[in-house]
This record gives sequence, structure tokens and C-alpha cells, in this order.
Amino acid sequence: MAVHDAVRDAAHDPMRRDAIVAALARIADTIRPDLVSQDAAELAEYGRDWTRVVAPAPSAIAFPRTTEEVSKLLAICDQERVAVVPSGGRTGLAGGAVASRGEVVLSLSRMRRMDEIDRLGGTVRVQAGAITEAVHQHCALHGLTWPVDFASKGSSTVGGNIATNAGGVKVIRYGLTRQWVLGLEVVLASGQVLEIGGALEKNNTGLDLRQLFIGSEGTLGVVTEATLKLARLPGATAVMLLGVTDVAAVLQLFREARSGPFTLAAYEFFSQKCLDRVLSHRKLVPPIAEPMPYYVLIEAEGDGAAEADQARLLEKLEPWIGGVFESGLAKDGTLAQHGSQARGLWALREGISESLSATGLAHKNDVALPIAALDAFCSELDDVFVRRYPGWEICLFGHVGDGNLHINVMKPADMDRDAFFAKTKEADRDLFALVQRHQGSISAEHGIGLLKKPYLSYSRSPAEQAVMRQVKRALDPHGTLNPGKVIDV
Amino acid sequence: MAVHDAVRDAAHDPMRRDAIVAALARIADTIRPDLVSQDAAELAEYGRDWTRVVAPAPSAIAFPRTTEEVSKLLAICDQERVAVVPSGGRTGLAGGAVASRGEVVLSLSRMRRMDEIDRLGGTVRVQAGAITEAVHQHCALHGLTWPVDFASKGSSTVGGNIATNAGGVKVIRYGLTRQWVLGLEVVLASGQVLEIGGALEKNNTGLDLRQLFIGSEGTLGVVTEATLKLARLPGATAVMLLGVTDVAAVLQLFREARSGPFTLAAYEFFSQKCLDRVLSHRKLVPPIAEPMPYYVLIEAEGDGAAEADQARLLEKLEPWIGGVFESGLAKDGTLAQHGSQARGLWALREGISESLSATGLAHKNDVALPIAALDAFCSELDDVFVRRYPGWEICLFGHVGDGNLHINVMKPADMDRDAFFAKTKEADRDLFALVQRHQGSISAEHGIGLLKKPYLSYSRSPAEQAVMRQVKRALDPHGTLNPGKVIDV
Repeated sequence: MAVHDAVRDAAHDPMRRDAIVAALARIADTIRPDLVSQDAAELAEYGRDWTRVVAPAPSAIAFPRTTEEVSKLLAICDQERVAVVPSGGRTGLAGGAVASRGEVVLSLSRMRRMDEIDRLGGTVRVQAGAITEAVHQHCALHGLTWPVDFASKGSSTVGGNIATNAGGVKVIRYGLTRQWVLGLEVVLASGQVLEIGGALEKNNTGLDLRQLFIGSEGTLGVVTEATLKLARLPGATAVMLLGVTDVAAVLQLFREARSGPFTLAAYEFFSQKCLDRVLSHRKLVPPIAEPMPYYVLIEAEGDGAAEADQARLLEKLEPWIGGVFESGLAKDGTLAQHGSQARGLWALREGISESLSATGLAHKNDVALPIAALDAFCSELDDVFVRRYPGWEICLFGHVGDGNLHINVMKPADMDRDAFFAKTKEADRDLFALVQRHQGSISAEHGIGLLKKPYLSYSRSPAEQAVMRQVKRALDPHGTLNPGKVIDV
Repeated sequence: MAVHDAVRDAAHDPMRRDAIVAALARIADTIRPDLVSQDAAELAEYGRDWTRVVAPAPSAIAFPRTTEEVSKLLAICDQERVAVVPSGGRTGLAGGAVASRGEVVLSLSRMRRMDEIDRLGGTVRVQAGAITEAVHQHCALHGLTWPVDFASKGSSTVGGNIATNAGGVKVIRYGLTRQWVLGLEVVLASGQVLEIGGALEKNNTGLDLRQLFIGSEGTLGVVTEATLKLARLPGATAVMLLGVTDVAAVLQLFREARSGPFTLAAYEFFSQKCLDRVLSHRKLVPPIAEPMPYYVLIEAEGDGAAEADQARLLEKLEPWIGGVFESGLAKDGTLAQHGSQARGLWALREGISESLSATGLAHKNDVALPIAALDAFCSELDDVFVRRYPGWEICLFGHVGDGNLHINVMKPADMDRDAFFAKTKEADRDLFALVQRHQGSISAEHGIGLLKKPYLSYSRSPAEQAVMRQVKRALDPHGTLNPGKVIDV
């Protein structure tokens, strides 16, 4: 892969290897002899994330237990000029947590403390290594939730979510991770510890430094703790799946859903090809008798906290659903009548990524468009597909209510892996040019990491990149933190 | 005032005056002869904001009509080392828009364009000088709103709201201005124009540069245009005013309201002393027969868009209100039965600031605390008041649902103005020390500007301030933009 070719294999630079040896010796001497592992299995495991494109080659994995250990470790690595890759649940899809150049991986996996919930304030303080789903369970006992939610919640961590400003299936209702972080403890490359924000909703006292670190993919600092803002668990919700004929109908239905008599908690879509893969992988029966080109999953939320309101919500939904059938916008559909049916519909949507990987090799893109541009974009995208991938299988799905499309191109069975990636790489340029023409983003939620770095200019101007570099140089002058990711300095 | 004493009066520096003359000549020659005014009335008017503490002394006021004019003007001022104060509606309460040192004021007041609403995307693009209330009216025609809302909405501008990350009365429901900005056009000190974000909900392509400029009080760049995210106008709402005996009851009632059968759209409080001033200034009758020490204003929102749901919402509220009376939490209260009654209750809350100014001289503070710390903070605050201001009138109000207290100390009638401010300045140190002890913020929503700059260290650590300086130096190396505000570089 060119991504891999492009990076200097720093582990073979003798000066650099000396530096690593020196740093590891100092870490063992001055912090803790067992802080760092060089076990081969751990090097392979912690050196990579959910992307499988770049081969892992870290020098060592550090498992600090406290912020103080993180601080000491970073100070040593900064002084010895050893690169550090901060590491959470490694569920990222852009290679942001890959260590392929002899870096030291700083895993937060031993820092999973969750404090007691502050019920009056609606906040909780956790360490960065806390697993997303564990936080959900911790909060649910008090009728609260941290509304950052997506398929990889069983492995992803709070720190990783913050470092990537994670999105997911509830963004249309709750916004991105950025909105649900009140306070941060961050360690800078120098080892300096910053305490930012605390448990405050409002704090207009100069530059909001949290925002620098949220979404910076570990290039500006290492998040060690966070005070999370919590939301009340939704009361009654209802889930429906509707079949539609084209993208224009997906968007028209979105407009109807947004002005419907309910709070829109999710508006997801996927194509028939995605559904086919999920049904075949999971051995399920189709949710709707007749196949449709596109499916929309809608979660509606009522205003009540009581279980009894579920019936009222369904009652309110029925005339609305009747209307979208009458107008011909939806051709077929199903409204879940209870929780397990609702979970079944959600599983169709959330199982897509896994089913694509299990049934083939997918080349993934994750783009965002202004919602108003989606229809035009999708028809122009068809032209790109027809020209670049005649007869190939394209699986489209995503958070269409946020303008976010996951575009997956499946490797044809008779094609060589390298030839496939070479072909998709060419086509990506066409795709990104199209995204740029519609003022979209080449990475809606996956981030830039290593994999999207060559394409950053399609979404960020030279002037913007210059400012990004200035900030990076100001905060990490020696380039210790996740070098080679997002942007070259 | 020490704030004023502390700043060098740069207009008297002969080199600096030469620079200003040179810059103004270049601006007239190369941009437009009538871009800049030196009319005495305009200098006095545009040199100050709603604070009246520092005397205005700008050299000139520029009224650009386009981003290109802003860019050219900034480039010239940067090259000539002339300080520029960006200026919106000048409703700020921290002196952030004051020009007291011979600066050029850059007023965005001729840049008020509002584009057509994108109804599908739920966005609108406006120039920075657009008035908040005009944006509301523009959007309301389509059933949408930009939910940044506060008493000064008739004068404040979108650019000013963004530069100060404005809060207001709906933060508990919608969050701060930061959450309602999708795209920004910003001009850097060098004149370089940055286009950031566009109309995208999601764009994880490296550092989110919008966040640098939102809340930076004009010290990092000048916002010239913004793409605003819009919300659906709420359907049925209900407003009630409840009287309670102490701060503990205010907080307990907050907990009840947050788990009530409605969406909490506002939770405001004020003391009897605030209400007395409003009633006397506006010649109104008390909303509740018996005076109470504290009042809570609650706005509840239903889930329906239809007018008919108002009745249903009131019906749902009645048992809840009955419950808080039965438990003794609220001692008396009134539930608005229609829109004009609701507006009347809101006027009591929104009229406080104006009524305090109209009936006396107020020393204002605007602090935030973790909600869980509010009760302890308020009782310790009483001790500070008793010790520092025995017998003085203290008016407390604020957005208590966000942990935000506006603390106003009224000048006793028989006291000299300078003696009053000297006394309050001493007491501020005690207040801020208390805020710091409870991990609060010395400026919840007003910002730092000039007035709170001497106290920044009570809320931001030396490490945080060092990072703020690094970012400022990186983006504005010559210190052209709003120098002397927020932090010294």
C-alpha cells in the first residue's frame, strides 16, 4: 500500500532505535519496570486498529495505570524524541491508532475507573480507558445515559471517542461526542498535565482548550480523564423500517420525519445490497416481503418517561405512517410493536459493517454532504460507480439525517487484493473530487488518521492546513504525539 | 479604574500614531475612501460596549461591506502594526469590544445579509453583522429558529454571539452558541480568509478550526459569515413561576423538573430583591400575592407541533405542579394560561438587568458552578456578602439549570462611585477565590474581555494560559487582533 510505502520505517533508523532503547530503560528505571511490554502478541495486537491496511510494528506497548505515569512516560519520550501512539479501543477505521514505525504505543486500557454518577448535575467522571458500553450501563442505573452510541460500543473507549469526536447512530438527536464532554484531563507531549473545564456547562474564560483535543486523533495531547455530560434516558421510543424507491424519496421522507409529531431520534438508511449481505451472513428472514432499493430506519421518541406512553406514541405514529404510505413516499414498511422487534430492526442496520467484512473485502469511505446536496451527489456518484466499477457491488448506508454516507465497494471474488485496492485508490480521487464539488467532507466521522491523509486537501484548504500545522507545532514542538497522522508538520 | 490605568495609552505613542496615520491613508487609497469614519460621535459610540467602565478612545471606525474589504483592512493594519478591535452589537458585559487605546474599530454593522433558508438541511448562511432577532424572524417564517436567545437579541449580532460563545435563557434546552454554528468564514490577522466547515453536520477531517474562533472574543480572527444550524420552533410550551424559600429548594425543584413529564426548556431563578426592582421600574403588580425569597421560572415544552397540544401540555403539568406544592417544595406559584401571560412572566426575568441599571448602579459578576456545588457555594457566598457588604443590596439571578449565577451588588445611595468600585474590586477576590474552591468559572457567559482579565487565573491554570498564549502567537504573531483582551501575550 502506498500509505505504508510513504512512511519512513523509522525502526530501522539506528539513531532512532538508540533513542527507543534509552527511553525504555528510563521508563523502566524511573516509572515502573513492568509498565512496558514487548511481548510479540501484544505488539501485534496493540500496534493496529480495525483497519487492516498497514502492518503493525511498534517498539513497545505501555500500560500506565495513572495520569502521573502517562505524564512521566510522555516526558521521557519527548526528551528522547521517541514517537508515541495513544491507543484506546482501536476500533478506528482510519488507521489513527496504528503504530507501524517503531513507536511506543500508549494504551489507556488499564485506566477504566468510573466515578459515582453526580445525579443532580447529570455528570460522571471517568478515566479515558472506560469502555463506552460500560459507561452506558453505569449511567442507566440512574435513568441517565452518555448518548454517544454506535456499533463498536463494546470495545471503543471514552478516550478514543473523544480523540476522534465519534459520531454514530444518535447524532441527529444528540450531536457528536464534542457536545457531551464537560471536562478533560489531558497530558501534553511535554508531560505537562492540563485540567480543563471540570463539571461546568458554561465557562467562557478564554479559549476553550477542550475543543483543541476533541477530534485531534491523539496528535495534540493524550486524554486521561473526562467529565461526561449525561442525558436522561429516553422514555417511549418506536422503531420503524420503511422501503423506498430512490434517494430523492429518502430525503423527502426525512423532511416529513423531521416535521412529524415526535422527536426524531435516528434516521438511518441502507441499500438492498447491504440488507442482502446482513440477511445472508446472519441467516435472517427479510423484514419486508418485497425487496426495495433503499430502506430507511426511523427511531421516534415520545416525551414521556413512563412505559405507558409507548402505546400513545405508537398511536400518534400511525396517522403519520399512514400519510407517508398514502403519498406513495414509502412503498412498504414495518413498525416494531415491542422492544425485541425494535432491536431486530436495529440489528439490520448495525450489522452491516460486520456483515460486509464477514462476506467479503470492503473498501470503505465515509463522506458527508450538506443534506441539500445529497440527491444531486448520489446521482453523480452513480456515474462514478458505473465508470470506475462497472458491474461491481456497491453497498451504501449511513446516517443520512446528518448528511453522512458510508460508501463500501466490495472486492469482486475473481480479483486480486492488490489490484482491487489499486483500483479503489484511483476511484477515490473521483469520489473525493465529487465530494469537494458539493462542499462535503471526505471523512464524516472516521477521521483522517493514516488512510485519509493523502486526501486531506479535498476537504481542507491550504490556509486551513497551515493553521492546523501552526497549532500542532505550538503544542507538540518535537512531533512526539502520533506523528505522521492527520497531517505532516 | 485600575483596568484602565493598567493599559498603556498607545494613542500617545508617537510611533504608533504614525502607524495609524499611515494605515488610514493606505485604507483610503487602496480600499475605499469612505470605509473609515473619524466622526466624534461615531468614535464615542463604536468605541465602547454595554460596559461603561473604560472610556472609549478609538482612532477610527471602519465599516466594511464585504469580506474582501475586511481582509484588505486587516492586512494593512497587520503590516502597519495597528491594533484592530472587531465589533458586533457591542452588548458585551466584559469590555471585549471596547477600544480605549487608539485602535481601529472594525464594525461588522454594514454586513447584515441573510441568505434564503435551506429548509431541507435546516441551515441558513448569514453575514456576521446580522442581528440575532432578525435571524429569528427570518427563520420563524419556516417554522425554524436559531436557538441562541437572550435579552439583548435586538442589538446583538451573530458575529458577536459567535465571538463570545453567547449563552442565554435556552442553554439548558439547546446548549451554547458553539453548538449552532456549522460553517464559518473567518479573516485572520494577516488578512488571510479561512472558509471552515460549510453546511456540514459532520466533518472529522483534522482539527475543528471553528472551535478556535468561537468564544475567542475577537483575539484570533474576525468572523465575517456563518452557516447557522437551525432547530424546529417548539410547539406547545408552558411557563410557570414558583416561589421557594431557599437555594436548596431551588436545586431540589430543578431535580424534580428535570425528571418531569416534559422537556425542560428553561429553568431560571431570581431573588425577591431582583423582582422588587423590576416591579418598581416597570410599575407592575406582583405575580404572586405573598413575596417569597426566591422565584423559579420554568418553561416546559411538549412534543407536539400543533397548537392543540397546549391544552394537553397544561393538563400534563397540573399533577406535576400539584406534587411540588404538596411536598412543600414550592410555596406559591402561577401557571400562565396563554401566551401573553407567559410573556409577562418572562418579562419579569428578562427585565432584571435593565431594571437594575435603571434603578441604580450595579457591579456585575457572572459565575458558574458545578450544579452539585451550588447550594454550598450560595451559603458560603452569604458569608462573603455579610463580611464585605454589610447591609448592602445583593441581587441574585441566573440560569441556575446551567449552574450560572448573575451576582449583582447595588451601590448604596450614599456612597461615592469610586469608593463603591474600589470596595467591590476587593470583594471580587473573595468571590473568585470561593468560585475557584468550588471548581467554578469566574465568567460563565460574559467572557473575559478587559474587565475580568486580571482575574483569569482564578479559572485557568498557568498551564492552560501557556497553551492559550501559544495559540494566540501562532495565529496572530503581531498581536493585531484585540490586543490587551482576555490574556496578555
